[in-house]
Amino acid sequence: MQTKAYAAAAARAPLGPITIDRRDPGSKDVAIEILYCGVCHSDLHTARGEWPGILYPCVPGHEIIGRVTAVGKDVTKFKPGDVAGVGCMVDSCRTCDPCQHDLEQYCAGPHSFTGTYNGAAKGGLPNTLGGYSKQIVVEDHFVLRIQHKEEDLAAAAPLLCAGITTWSPLKHWNVGPGKKVGVVGIGGLGHMGVKLAHALGAHVVAFTTSDSKRQAALDLGADEVVVSKNADEMAAHAGTFDFILNTVAASHDLDAFTKLLKLDGTLTLVGVPEHPHPSPSAGVLIFGRKAIAGSLIGGIAETQEMLDFCAEHGITSDVEMIAMKDIDHAYDRMLKSDVKYRFVIDMATLD
Amino acid sequence: MQTKAYAAAAARAPLGPITIDRRDPGSKDVAIEILYCGVCHSDLHTARGEWPGILYPCVPGHEIIGRVTAVGKDVTKFKPGDVAGVGCMVDSCRTCDPCQHDLEQYCAGPHSFTGTYNGAAKGGLPNTLGGYSKQIVVEDHFVLRIQHKEEDLAAAAPLLCAGITTWSPLKHWNVGPGKKVGVVGIGGLGHMGVKLAHALGAHVVAFTTSDSKRQAALDLGADEVVVSKNADEMAAHAGTFDFILNTVAASHDLDAFTKLLKLDGTLTLVGVPEHPHPSPSAGVLIFGRKAIAGSLIGGIAETQEMLDFCAEHGITSDVEMIAMKDIDHAYDRMLKSDVKYRFVIDMATLD
Repeated sequence: MQTKAYAAAAARAPLGPITIDRRDPGSKDVAIEILYCGVCHSDLHTARGEWPGILYPCVPGHEIIGRVTAVGKDVTKFKPGDVAGVGCMVDSCRTCDPCQHDLEQYCAGPHSFTGTYNGAAKGGLPNTLGGYSKQIVVEDHFVLRIQHKEEDLAAAAPLLCAGITTWSPLKHWNVGPGKKVGVVGIGGLGHMGVKLAHALGAHVVAFTTSDSKRQAALDLGADEVVVSKNADEMAAHAGTFDFILNTVAASHDLDAFTKLLKLDGTLTLVGVPEHPHPSPSAGVLIFGRKAIAGSLIGGIAETQEMLDFCAEHGITSDVEMIAMKDIDHAYDRMLKSDVKYRFVIDMATLD
Repeated sequence: MQTKAYAAAAARAPLGPITIDRRDPGSKDVAIEILYCGVCHSDLHTARGEWPGILYPCVPGHEIIGRVTAVGKDVTKFKPGDVAGVGCMVDSCRTCDPCQHDLEQYCAGPHSFTGTYNGAAKGGLPNTLGGYSKQIVVEDHFVLRIQHKEEDLAAAAPLLCAGITTWSPLKHWNVGPGKKVGVVGIGGLGHMGVKLAHALGAHVVAFTTSDSKRQAALDLGADEVVVSKNADEMAAHAGTFDFILNTVAASHDLDAFTKLLKLDGTLTLVGVPEHPHPSPSAGVLIFGRKAIAGSLIGGIAETQEMLDFCAEHGITSDVEMIAMKDIDHAYDRMLKSDVKYRFVIDMATLD
């Protein structure tokens, strides 16, 4: 089965229209007509070949919301007409210890999980092709139920990556009422971190490098905003945070944030910087039994939990809709942080 | 009250005999005649002025075992003739949240905890003076019961710092049966880490840079020994450790060890290197929800728990006894790792 898509033909080529093959749905597959696809920084890094091992043509996109058009005979969770989502993963080994514990994102099988794009494809295709396309076929285990209102569907798309990437560490490190939680960086990930930590009942402090983002961060649900370049403002919070979620993937001083943790606090990174962060101080960790940790997206069951929580609480991403043809311009704007806070492609514009 | 001691008069001076003042025991104080004092790397760094803020004359020593000679009227835990120990702390604020939770080592009071040496002394004295002395006076809360056999007392002294510094993280990170635990560096701290992790029932892997230490590490209780310079040997353990205790305070590649952690594993540092470790990889942490943490000695209740455990299981440090006058030579040998594994001063030699 063939479908329209938008692809980078090579590392430095602008994206353009292409026709791609999708496998015929197997007994456990769900075929989805894509309505919306969020635009993640990973899309940009991959399409432009900034990461190693990218295969071309490359169709990015892993914040997918669409409508089910067909299901295999063994699929019971979905039926044609349902609204469904697909995130960063479309397969994993399903048998390793992490997979058996709903932690497919940490699949310890021979190939780790299969990314929604640039992963190892099934059915003889060379690599998985993502959500910048009209149709996708995914095994039911990796398809999510979407219970948001019809008018919220576009803004729900970024929950599939930005949402779960922030939700998973917030939940893992027990963020909730009575906890003081920081979110570093108020962009695509960070703005979801603020919304979700707030909805989970924590006292949320947003850290930004820009004084101009204060009001916007408050509007997202932050209880306080700290401009991280202001040493006095930072020092006033020393030793007070239970948990800090650091969404900034650019190299920066982590000690500035570990110093703000209280005893047994954790600073969790969700982004890999191109150039390493300056070496963090062992002393700051030792004199407070603090930790620097990492977290990767989230498992499928946890993603469903997050989506259901967001539907119930009316939480979506703040998005700017774009047409498919404007994707390269959107990438350029993302590089300048010129988006509040996530681009979403209206896939109707691919026709 | 005056007592004989051994002190550094200045940063680069050799240590020599001195007479020092001890406060008269107050109602909650315990006066102890010191029998043995272990020699910690911190003693060396402090005596030789390698750390900032050292006051002279400096009397090091915080692995103290001795006999109670007098107690204040409100002391019920000890009586004259008891064997007692003093570790790294002789006071703390006692009212902050960490102190209230038996975590005096993380005292959040205005002055943190009071170190056994180079801390802020009570009674108008300029700075606390440690265990390289014949007598010490310490408030009962910071005095430990020692239940080891008489012939084990010298070898029990290093438990007061090396023992608790390794015990506390092993317990905090739930080391026990069914857990695969690494101990990096087989020196004063590391050899206690191996002994304690083994006694706690874990599968213990000792990491050393030297092939020549294999048998010695097995003798300490390691189930396996890995020479960390051997990449193949390291790779064979990738993703398999629940916890790794890193006792090496010299700058080294932490990624080599975080790569060996399994999902949700933690690498805990207990030493502050003079030059920072190379910046650890965020990606290794993220793709496995791993953490790099720190840990500082242990609380008083936890130190008592460790001492009681060690007495019950016949665990002591492996020590080499020295005379007080040989302390500078012992420091020089420590710098060459020429000790298996801890020097202990026989305080009878101070007469």
